[in-house]
Amino acid sequence: VATPHLIGLDWGTTSLRAYRFDGSGQVIESRQQRAGILQVAAEGDAPGRHDGFERALDQACGDWISADPACPLLACGMIGSAQGWREAPYVEIPASVDAPGHALTRVATARGTLHIVPGLIARGPLPEVMRGEETQVAGVVEPAATGDAWIGLPGTHAKWVRVRDRRVVGFHTFMTGEVFAALCAHTILGRTMRPAAEPDLDAFDRGVAVARSPDGRLGVLSTVFSARTLGLVGALAAEAQADYLSGLLIGHEVAALDQLGEWREPISLVGDAALCERYRRALAASGHAPAVIAARATERGLWRIAVAAGLAAEAASSPAM
Amino acid sequence: VATPHLIGLDWGTTSLRAYRFDGSGQVIESRQQRAGILQVAAEGDAPGRHDGFERALDQACGDWISADPACPLLACGMIGSAQGWREAPYVEIPASVDAPGHALTRVATARGTLHIVPGLIARGPLPEVMRGEETQVAGVVEPAATGDAWIGLPGTHAKWVRVRDRRVVGFHTFMTGEVFAALCAHTILGRTMRPAAEPDLDAFDRGVAVARSPDGRLGVLSTVFSARTLGLVGALAAEAQADYLSGLLIGHEVAALDQLGEWREPISLVGDAALCERYRRALAASGHAPAVIAARATERGLWRIAVAAGLAAEAASSPAM
Repeated sequence: VATPHLIGLDWGTTSLRAYRFDGSGQVIESRQQRAGILQVAAEGDAPGRHDGFERALDQACGDWISADPACPLLACGMIGSAQGWREAPYVEIPASVDAPGHALTRVATARGTLHIVPGLIARGPLPEVMRGEETQVAGVVEPAATGDAWIGLPGTHAKWVRVRDRRVVGFHTFMTGEVFAALCAHTILGRTMRPAAEPDLDAFDRGVAVARSPDGRLGVLSTVFSARTLGLVGALAAEAQADYLSGLLIGHEVAALDQLGEWREPISLVGDAALCERYRRALAASGHAPAVIAARATERGLWRIAVAAGLAAEAASSPAM
Repeated sequence: VATPHLIGLDWGTTSLRAYRFDGSGQVIESRQQRAGILQVAAEGDAPGRHDGFERALDQACGDWISADPACPLLACGMIGSAQGWREAPYVEIPASVDAPGHALTRVATARGTLHIVPGLIARGPLPEVMRGEETQVAGVVEPAATGDAWIGLPGTHAKWVRVRDRRVVGFHTFMTGEVFAALCAHTILGRTMRPAAEPDLDAFDRGVAVARSPDGRLGVLSTVFSARTLGLVGALAAEAQADYLSGLLIGHEVAALDQLGEWREPISLVGDAALCERYRRALAASGHAPAVIAARATERGLWRIAVAAGLAAEAASSPAM
């Protein structure tokens, strides 16, 4: 194994992913644990949390650190929130995609200094915040990029990020993933759903089409009820209702962005592959050029932020991942 | 006590309300019990449910029936659903507000025949259904009414009903109440909320204003996140977040109806008084004439449907309630 030049952590709400990088920014080893801040924070008050985070860090990569105690440690995600290890103050946009690397928060740990990547904030009448996605954005926007780009990061809280000349100029959050889960588990819509053997993308597309139809003007609070009524009249199988609902919500999200009129091509998507594929379908249904699904954005972003921060030296002009 | 001429039941998902009417359609006694179909259906399979409904009926008004065994029994609400005592097939719209009275479903009970009011259905690409609200609509629309009217029935599943010349010509459902409850109890938005000593209508109005603002174009999946971010930046107290969210959702509901362009004045509101007042504020913020809050719509509707069905004789030209 090559000498590690960076240990990067993607430390979120429900999981902790650890990456070991070589001197060219290649990931040479990675691990994932269920040690998100929610699990650790459940262990108690601030001193208790501190001990919990120490243990989680040790379990995730204590052996890597022991093998090379001087290797820098860089973490992004909710570990930098008020409920995390230490709050890393947001960087205000507009800001370069490299800006978080110049504003790291440091925590002294039993295993050395942990550097935490700050999130981004957009102030204004409706503030917007992100933590973790700023690192993925840094991983998607190439060092020499110019012009406009849109980056979609679907998930529990989907983010849509506008980038111009490598600067984040705006972003919007949609609680699509979390609302979908709450509707399925905690409203009448879930009561008639049955699990599907495999994803029903026809049902998904049908939901997207409804959101984009004249009926979609009623908005998501109204159209979601059709997941139930179509079932009542025998026009939507119980096994198809969840995917139909997924299409409705994602369709409304894309339709709202269409109405905003801020789109710029190209559109990149970052996240779970199956979920990105759903967004790509919804974007295509709205007439957008095929969206590019960007791989390993978090790893790339951790490396680039480490380079921007001077924690890692860039051996090549750009990591060849 | 005057001789009862009708026993009316509003038998919904979570509660059972019983009304005893005199010969002029006046309610002379009423009761409420937690014996909704969810509680009773929990008792088991179809025969078990039948016994459960018999017991609930007996507890609610067995003494009234014993005192006058010939008194007709009429029930509206989810008792007529597939999960109720017997399914009462929907009446298809457009239909007169009296039409449900001509399509009652009968159940033989130990205490005589129970007549169940059917709900309404609008067929089409996105079917719409109601059960219970058709009775409230019958109670709001006066026997001699002509022309257009809109009736809003806020609640778990808010309904907006278009009436023309005493015929229901269309309606829309918004899952506003249930979505609000799910967002508060089962998403990140609830985690920063604290209970308020009393309703914060300023926070409610603020939510309505955001939904109607240019930011509102992002849709409810996006704007709801501001309940959290405004709290994060210290611009919305924890105690105000639930009312702000309520304003956002109701504001989006009214804005969607505005965009539909089907409104006709006058607008009547039926339901919980405090909730109707919230809708009245949201409608006023959209420039609508003051909405009329209609009282005792269910009782009036049960009586009128009984008269239309020939179960009760109309002593006066119109019940003077």
